[in-house]
Amino acid sequence: SPLSRTVRCTCIKISDGTVNRQSLEKLEIFPASQYCPKVEIIATLKKNGEKRCLNPESKAIKNLLKAIRKDRSKPSS
Amino acid sequence: SPLSRTVRCTCIKISDGTVNRQSLEKLEIFPASQYCPKVEIIATLKKNGEKRCLNPESKAIKNLLKAIRKDRSKPSS
Repeated sequence: SPLSRTVRCTCIKISDGTVNRQSLEKLEIFPASQYCPKVEIIATLKKNGEKRCLNPESKAIKNLLKAIRKDRSKPSS
Repeated sequence: SPLSRTVRCTCIKISDGTVNRQSLEKLEIFPASQYCPKVEIIATLKKNGEKRCLNPESKAIKNLLKAIRKDRSKPSS
């Protein structure tokens, strides 16, 4: 089709670093799709609801995901 | 304080299985917090926006996360 498809990714700037697990409200992971050809990982921070795009290929992010996944209940505050 | 704290997790029922990467709109990961003592992973499906809670300790979910993270752009549809 001659119509160009709208490709829309959410992340404009990808953060080089990671985020502190304790300051993290949630992580959203959007798989690559017809709307955006690359996976996007978006962190929402507790403090101000700030959203930050993380690098899916970063080893620090890989480790962050692993740490979160393995977190069991532990005494909080 | 005598007031009991409201502990509120999102997931009531955890799915035993996994979800097809292609049918996945997004994954949300909520780290353990004072509101919910365990990590929660919630899949949103493309088709109907259905949300499904996944088991963070499942090997299938670990592999799903890995597969999504490693997904590069590839021809879609």
